Amino acid sequence: MKKTSPKLLSGFMELLPAQQIAFNNMKNTIAQTYEKFGFMPMDTPVLESADVLLAKAGGETEKQIYRFEKGDNDIALRFDLTVPLARFVAANQNNLAFPFRRYQIGKVYRGERPQKGRFREFYQCDIDIVGNEKLDIIYEAEVAAVIIETLKALNIGDFVMNISNRKLLSGLLQGLGIEDKATDVLRIIDKLDKVGGGGMIAMLLAEGIGLPQANAILGFCNIKGSAREVIENLKAFGIANDIFNAGISELAAVVSGLENFGIPEKFFAINLSIARGLDYYTGTVYETFLVGKENVGSIASGGRYDNLASAYTDKTLPGVGICIGLTRLFDILRANEMLDFSKTLCDVLVIPMSPAQIPYAINVANFFRKNNIKTEVFFEDVKFKNKMNYANKSQIPFAVILGEDEEKSGIITLKNMKTSTQITCPPAEAIENIKK
Amino acid sequence: MKKTSPKLLSGFMELLPAQQIAFNNMKNTIAQTYEKFGFMPMDTPVLESADVLLAKAGGETEKQIYRFEKGDNDIALRFDLTVPLARFVAANQNNLAFPFRRYQIGKVYRGERPQKGRFREFYQCDIDIVGNEKLDIIYEAEVAAVIIETLKALNIGDFVMNISNRKLLSGLLQGLGIEDKATDVLRIIDKLDKVGGGGMIAMLLAEGIGLPQANAILGFCNIKGSAREVIENLKAFGIANDIFNAGISELAAVVSGLENFGIPEKFFAINLSIARGLDYYTGTVYETFLVGKENVGSIASGGRYDNLASAYTDKTLPGVGICIGLTRLFDILRANEMLDFSKTLCDVLVIPMSPAQIPYAINVANFFRKNNIKTEVFFEDVKFKNKMNYANKSQIPFAVILGEDEEKSGIITLKNMKTSTQITCPPAEAIENIKK
Repeated sequence: MKKTSPKLLSGFMELLPAQQIAFNNMKNTIAQTYEKFGFMPMDTPVLESADVLLAKAGGETEKQIYRFEKGDNDIALRFDLTVPLARFVAANQNNLAFPFRRYQIGKVYRGERPQKGRFREFYQCDIDIVGNEKLDIIYEAEVAAVIIETLKALNIGDFVMNISNRKLLSGLLQGLGIEDKATDVLRIIDKLDKVGGGGMIAMLLAEGIGLPQANAILGFCNIKGSAREVIENLKAFGIANDIFNAGISELAAVVSGLENFGIPEKFFAINLSIARGLDYYTGTVYETFLVGKENVGSIASGGRYDNLASAYTDKTLPGVGICIGLTRLFDILRANEMLDFSKTLCDVLVIPMSPAQIPYAINVANFFRKNNIKTEVFFEDVKFKNKMNYANKSQIPFAVILGEDEEKSGIITLKNMKTSTQITCPPAEAIENIKK
Repeated sequence: MKKTSPKLLSGFMELLPAQQIAFNNMKNTIAQTYEKFGFMPMDTPVLESADVLLAKAGGETEKQIYRFEKGDNDIALRFDLTVPLARFVAANQNNLAFPFRRYQIGKVYRGERPQKGRFREFYQCDIDIVGNEKLDIIYEAEVAAVIIETLKALNIGDFVMNISNRKLLSGLLQGLGIEDKATDVLRIIDKLDKVGGGGMIAMLLAEGIGLPQANAILGFCNIKGSAREVIENLKAFGIANDIFNAGISELAAVVSGLENFGIPEKFFAINLSIARGLDYYTGTVYETFLVGKENVGSIASGGRYDNLASAYTDKTLPGVGICIGLTRLFDILRANEMLDFSKTLCDVLVIPMSPAQIPYAINVANFFRKNNIKTEVFFEDVKFKNKMNYANKSQIPFAVILGEDEEKSGIITLKNMKTSTQITCPPAEAIENIKK
């Protein structure tokens, strides 16, 4: 029979068990931390009506989306978890308590050209807090604190959450009399790290922005220092319109909120050059970088939006949210050998020496399971050498070997597979050993 | 601005938070039980190359599948988790230890005509054990035992796993000289519950099967009783070919295996009329019914297959697996009001009386979180009445109210929202109260 090659589509991640266990541990840590802060789970369909998913989209999104027709339906695969959230809140607004706090961990789909570090199917891990008509600024500190606590719990090395506020840039451009160039300026500022200050000035000039304004924009982006210093420098920057001032106070409120949440400043920094490509952010914005690996891009991004669901409802639903890009983060950590793939899920492999010991093996295994020890039994009737080969290959830390003698005396032989030491004892005594 | 209606496609399930929490609890219980028996997690892409996913499919599957082209790719959404497992094992056979035990919990997609109890996107929760060239019969008892333990842990009321063996039917048809009619007979037996014995005879006659053979088939399907009785009756049934006898011994081995696993017979029964529509089963087959709700169909089904990945590899990979249809099971339990939606995820809502108490509120919340208590803070500066409205609507069991007095004395007011009783105490003393 002709065989089909068992290949994956390019741009899709699939893991062998040891890596999948590490991935799931990260995913569980994220969910548990989100839940500790009172975020509720949500699970929306992967497939939605294209007109619903694309109600506000355009440009790049439309090109990347997986979209097709079946029967009478024009269907699209979700490309993020924010649009489904907007649809959900608009549809269920009367059944929700506001501020509505939800997390969603799920796969999203973008038919991008495959390239290193870019996936076509990837996990997003979102938290959002959505208000009814209004939402206090302190929630903008809270989501940042939750994400920082989550990344700390993931044990991924040093990272810094960069924080800015869209109103500062809007106020700056208004003060410079070039608010009509906002989209271009956002796009160019996003490139500052790549092209440098001189490159950025050149790009701004090429868009028809005058040299004094271009210099002011670069000067703004270059304001650095501690959060307190940046805020002082912003106050002294010489832009005095309402929107710029609102940006300063919001930034100050977020910084002071982070202090209240007990987040030391080593975990965050004001960085006025982060702009976030997306149009819908209206206040605080966040991007998070691994220290020394800034070039791979942000691992957790988000921001404040004044009107989440305007495509679906007249009600004003302001919110703030941040998303951890888990598939990408996992891929970066794996490439940098920062993940431990030696952890198995199973604690014990029970090996009956012959089929006669199968009932005893099952009893011992059930006893371990009742004591919360993950236990597998190897039932194949093969040579002992092959049984031990399986034990080695599967990397399960303990083997429990059961022969006639063990069964007669109701004891077990417990072998530590790493140290190759073994002891003989009743099953109950082995539990402590295994749990260590 | 014209609004888009925030509607879902029909046939897709989406849950409000209280129901989602119940759903996730079920999903977590399933995963934890599977892991306790040493099954390793797998997570395959939702999208695959259509030629890979459909290498063995045909008929109904092809019609139901979501399939589309993007760029040069002919893409399909997975319609089960067994085909991806076959592809995975074929592709990674040199990196796996056999018998390979994996579980996968994920969404699958079938573009069926929407009808009650049928979803186009639904969760399957699969376990499979795949051998290299051979697989001991005891694993066919083990997967049944694991599924029974899982359904017990889900606390879904009485259920019975029905077990049969394909070889019995094959042997019967061979003995009756009508093995060429196997597909028709399988299809008709599947309808026995609906059409009754007389109806089944009529359908068999209509397929050109003689009356004596039709009567023998009905007599076979009607063998009932305890597992031991059914096996004795099968031995006395008068079919003496090798394949029929092999079916009897396999069935006897599975029953005795289930005894070894400590599964009482109230949880399983031999039912010779379960046939499972799918072609690829070659031995033991399983279907599981909720007692009193048999008409809604099987909630956990599967079977033994001799050659899992023959579409992709020359290597013979026999296996056995069972799948819990979680979305469907949840839907049935919900319709029968058998689920508890009163459980919230969050344990405590901390309410500062005024913005001045926000720092104290955050400290108290962080203290609770460190003690593994899921805690939310209500930060909006609104009237106290509105804060308590939120507490009621969100159904969080405890409110912690913090005013000036509480802050000064370093204490809290803990209100049990169900009983409306409240006490005042230091945060540390509240922990026991909340954990009860």
